[in-house]
Amino acid sequence: MPLRFAKATDEAYRYPLTIRHLLDRALTTSADQEIVYRDQYRFTYREFVQRVGRLSSLLSSLGAEEGMTISVMDWDSHRYLEAYFSIPMMGAVLQTVNVRLPIDQLLYTLVKTKPGLLLIHRDFFPFLDEIRQAVPGLKAIIAIMDGTGEPAPAWAAGDYEPLIAAADPDFDFKDFDENAIATTFFTTGTTGNPKGVCFSHRQLVLHTLALCGHSGDTRHRGFGVDDVYMPLTPMFHVHAWGMPYIATMLGLKQVYPGRYDADMICRLRTEHRVTYSHGVPTVLQMVIAAADRTGTDLSGWMMVVGGSSLTPVLFEEARRRGMEIIGAYGMSETAPILTVTRRSPGSEPGAADESHLLTRAGVPIPLVEARIVDEDMNPLPKDGRSRGELVVRAPWLTPCYVGDEQGSKALWRGGWLHTQDIATIDGNGNVTICDRLKDVIKSGGEWIDSIQLEGIVATADGVDEAAVVAVPDDHWGERPLAVIVAAPGATVTLGTLNRPIEAAIEGGAITRYAKLDRFIAVSELPRTSVGKIDKKTLRARFGSAQAEGSAATEPRAT
Amino acid sequence: MPLRFAKATDEAYRYPLTIRHLLDRALTTSADQEIVYRDQYRFTYREFVQRVGRLSSLLSSLGAEEGMTISVMDWDSHRYLEAYFSIPMMGAVLQTVNVRLPIDQLLYTLVKTKPGLLLIHRDFFPFLDEIRQAVPGLKAIIAIMDGTGEPAPAWAAGDYEPLIAAADPDFDFKDFDENAIATTFFTTGTTGNPKGVCFSHRQLVLHTLALCGHSGDTRHRGFGVDDVYMPLTPMFHVHAWGMPYIATMLGLKQVYPGRYDADMICRLRTEHRVTYSHGVPTVLQMVIAAADRTGTDLSGWMMVVGGSSLTPVLFEEARRRGMEIIGAYGMSETAPILTVTRRSPGSEPGAADESHLLTRAGVPIPLVEARIVDEDMNPLPKDGRSRGELVVRAPWLTPCYVGDEQGSKALWRGGWLHTQDIATIDGNGNVTICDRLKDVIKSGGEWIDSIQLEGIVATADGVDEAAVVAVPDDHWGERPLAVIVAAPGATVTLGTLNRPIEAAIEGGAITRYAKLDRFIAVSELPRTSVGKIDKKTLRARFGSAQAEGSAATEPRAT
Repeated sequence: MPLRFAKATDEAYRYPLTIRHLLDRALTTSADQEIVYRDQYRFTYREFVQRVGRLSSLLSSLGAEEGMTISVMDWDSHRYLEAYFSIPMMGAVLQTVNVRLPIDQLLYTLVKTKPGLLLIHRDFFPFLDEIRQAVPGLKAIIAIMDGTGEPAPAWAAGDYEPLIAAADPDFDFKDFDENAIATTFFTTGTTGNPKGVCFSHRQLVLHTLALCGHSGDTRHRGFGVDDVYMPLTPMFHVHAWGMPYIATMLGLKQVYPGRYDADMICRLRTEHRVTYSHGVPTVLQMVIAAADRTGTDLSGWMMVVGGSSLTPVLFEEARRRGMEIIGAYGMSETAPILTVTRRSPGSEPGAADESHLLTRAGVPIPLVEARIVDEDMNPLPKDGRSRGELVVRAPWLTPCYVGDEQGSKALWRGGWLHTQDIATIDGNGNVTICDRLKDVIKSGGEWIDSIQLEGIVATADGVDEAAVVAVPDDHWGERPLAVIVAAPGATVTLGTLNRPIEAAIEGGAITRYAKLDRFIAVSELPRTSVGKIDKKTLRARFGSAQAEGSAATEPRAT
Repeated sequence: MPLRFAKATDEAYRYPLTIRHLLDRALTTSADQEIVYRDQYRFTYREFVQRVGRLSSLLSSLGAEEGMTISVMDWDSHRYLEAYFSIPMMGAVLQTVNVRLPIDQLLYTLVKTKPGLLLIHRDFFPFLDEIRQAVPGLKAIIAIMDGTGEPAPAWAAGDYEPLIAAADPDFDFKDFDENAIATTFFTTGTTGNPKGVCFSHRQLVLHTLALCGHSGDTRHRGFGVDDVYMPLTPMFHVHAWGMPYIATMLGLKQVYPGRYDADMICRLRTEHRVTYSHGVPTVLQMVIAAADRTGTDLSGWMMVVGGSSLTPVLFEEARRRGMEIIGAYGMSETAPILTVTRRSPGSEPGAADESHLLTRAGVPIPLVEARIVDEDMNPLPKDGRSRGELVVRAPWLTPCYVGDEQGSKALWRGGWLHTQDIATIDGNGNVTICDRLKDVIKSGGEWIDSIQLEGIVATADGVDEAAVVAVPDDHWGERPLAVIVAAPGATVTLGTLNRPIEAAIEGGAITRYAKLDRFIAVSELPRTSVGKIDKKTLRARFGSAQAEGSAATEPRAT
């Protein structure tokens, strides 16, 4: 047996990795630093810590207790940040409700967690009857009137701000087991109902430390003392990638934008000189468009982009406006960050491989062990060519899907978390996601990378957006179907779509089986609640498509 | 009770914070990166990990087992780095023996830990008989012939390098409780025998992560992918401040200098373009002198300086040669880093307060909670003026002095670790160490800051080095005694010493009680094994001194 601290003094402080301790340092370094909500509220960290105490006193007076789930339905706000700390610090479980889910699925998540208390923004009051029916055990509801000046409805315990103002700032936060669950939320499943994941205090503290540690390693600008932080990933979505916890631990100025409104985001960026944000490619696109429209200067704004793959085109658009862009990769199940991009060791900004490297998944952050494996879990070489499923270990991965034993077992088959992504890893640790395990197209015995093919199709003349899914084919097993949104006034044919594909085949970048023999033009691509292209819907809708430019009109890629 | 992961799947990997996992990422990102020892050895990380396995196989074949203490007596080398990982990874305890201790104290530390195995460099063979007498339970001794080509003596199991070469690289490292003790070593006590401290796997991993996290926050250059690391703090001294663990986790190129030799250090700096080191002020001084002598370019070399206070003069000397210098503060009891300096938020390099801020103790790194308290443990304001004892909490503080119940209780009085340093903390979290609790001079009811006074005396004409200690005084309780080393050929009098002190009194920088009424000139100041001025010896030697320029010849500072 290894030695233990059997002889530690009783007096020695046994420091638990609980969320409470993320606040310790900020109060020392940044008591007068500010946290801002739109143009409505500004607080110092000194006040923020008091408000966290006030919220706990309030929740406690409404019947909160250790182990109770307390659900929040709100936009990105100081309130959400207060809940990120206050609810777990009391020993309760914060449920961050995905307010973009279809109402049936949203209700499903509440039925599963059985919250005792609910904080709800007025935008979601229309769902209140259904929610109360679905969760009869609710002890109280706090209404968020969001500075409208309207009184809280009669069914509510009151409006958030006046309730907080009246509550006691001194709440006696106690130490407890760091393995207590801090948060829970649901992934937007691609099949069936959403799946619940959960994370302990220890896990969230370790994710915070490791991600923060990576920031020093990258030779990017890092994330630290002079940054002004504004999340552009919804706070219900995997703790806004964990970044609010880092920003608070470091005591940085923080700006919360509320419900996303591109003009407001540009105004906040300018007024507070925001320097550090993160979001999905769609949000980056939205920010660029709004900035162009409003004449907002974007230079020096660092954005971590993840959630779906970042195209080199969008990367360059952002860079041309002076933004610094890095890619990152993770999942709801992984708290979420697993990898963050960085330049090649020894390379300078602007090096030739930069846009290639910075738009990949990145290298594992500290304490992340990453492998690619075959179907029998045999590790494959990290040579940048071999493809296999990416499996990972790290101290912050969800231990289960809540209440789903079979799903949990599949997630953790063989003691590694299965990402269900097909990837390569090169000698410098750069992970490149090739495809979702279930999105990969198997045609004539060859694997066609649907994401790569999508990227190529998107460069064809007259194409605004493109998705590629597999459709069944008697002869080939599966064939790729391109679903495109054409630019206004453009004429798109199989011939125009195949032009860049043929060039890529010529150059050896993709298999000749990728040449299209069918496509469909639509006015809009379906997206999931987090903005990803919804391939499940595409497959359901077009799964048997021969469609425009069908196999009959053009030769197959043989 | 907060919720637990009662329903986690059995398959889910429960990641323990053990030292083994610091290697996971490096093998992915840096398998071909190098670790260098002087001009003798170079290995890739791939080989390094194999050598860690080989060392464990070797130790195991010599009788190592979980919980056994294994002691190392070596200079800074790849061997030491291998021991940093291999020994704790087996579940054994690494004792890093302070080879600069007087032999009696060194033997004392071995008697206390009762090692089962010993690795010893040939430079220490002269002590071998005494060691074997003091530690009769030694199962085997590995000799380190250090590339001399000489065979290992007959009493040894063999020479390190050939033994490693013959050992099995595949050692089956198992997961175990992260609270197992990983390392132990002894502080150079200022009174009585050295005191043993110990650190668990969990503590060292968290120290590594938090210190790494701080590096992203500072707006200094950070410590990361393009750095080449070389320790200049002995590896027996608090894990070389924990930096080898960070460098290895990040997969950086590492250079180990062996026994410190200023010319060799300059050669290694140039040959490998070393960019990141750390050491006490004396080492920085030595490096600068050697570089001036050998014409070595120091520009762009970052050095973290701690261990004793860094004077603005030395700081500027280093900066003039293009080095980047930051201060840090910690103790053997704290693993060791508690604070690292940084520029003021919003300030640019070269700002007016920079040399002032960067030569202080710094701001708490993530997860460090720091307070200053009065004798009854009441917190004092963080206003930059109030002085009190600095007490801390962090997840990596030693839980006890090994086998010293009373000392352990005093260390942790009131649930906070007592640094025994008198400090101020300002509104940005900058900690400034004013004095050791026991070095502070209480004169006529006023506290005189001995470190501040030392700094002023050192600027007097003709003074090369200065120390100030309290001596008893019937009238004043205590009076400061300056012990100085005069520059060659210089004449030093109380009058010349008091000239800068009077200016400081005039400017309100120090109390008028600080004016000297006695001093002693010596040819050399006594130092402890880690290079700090040994005030204990000074007090013992001169405690009753009236000495040169005694009270009779000059008026008292009244």
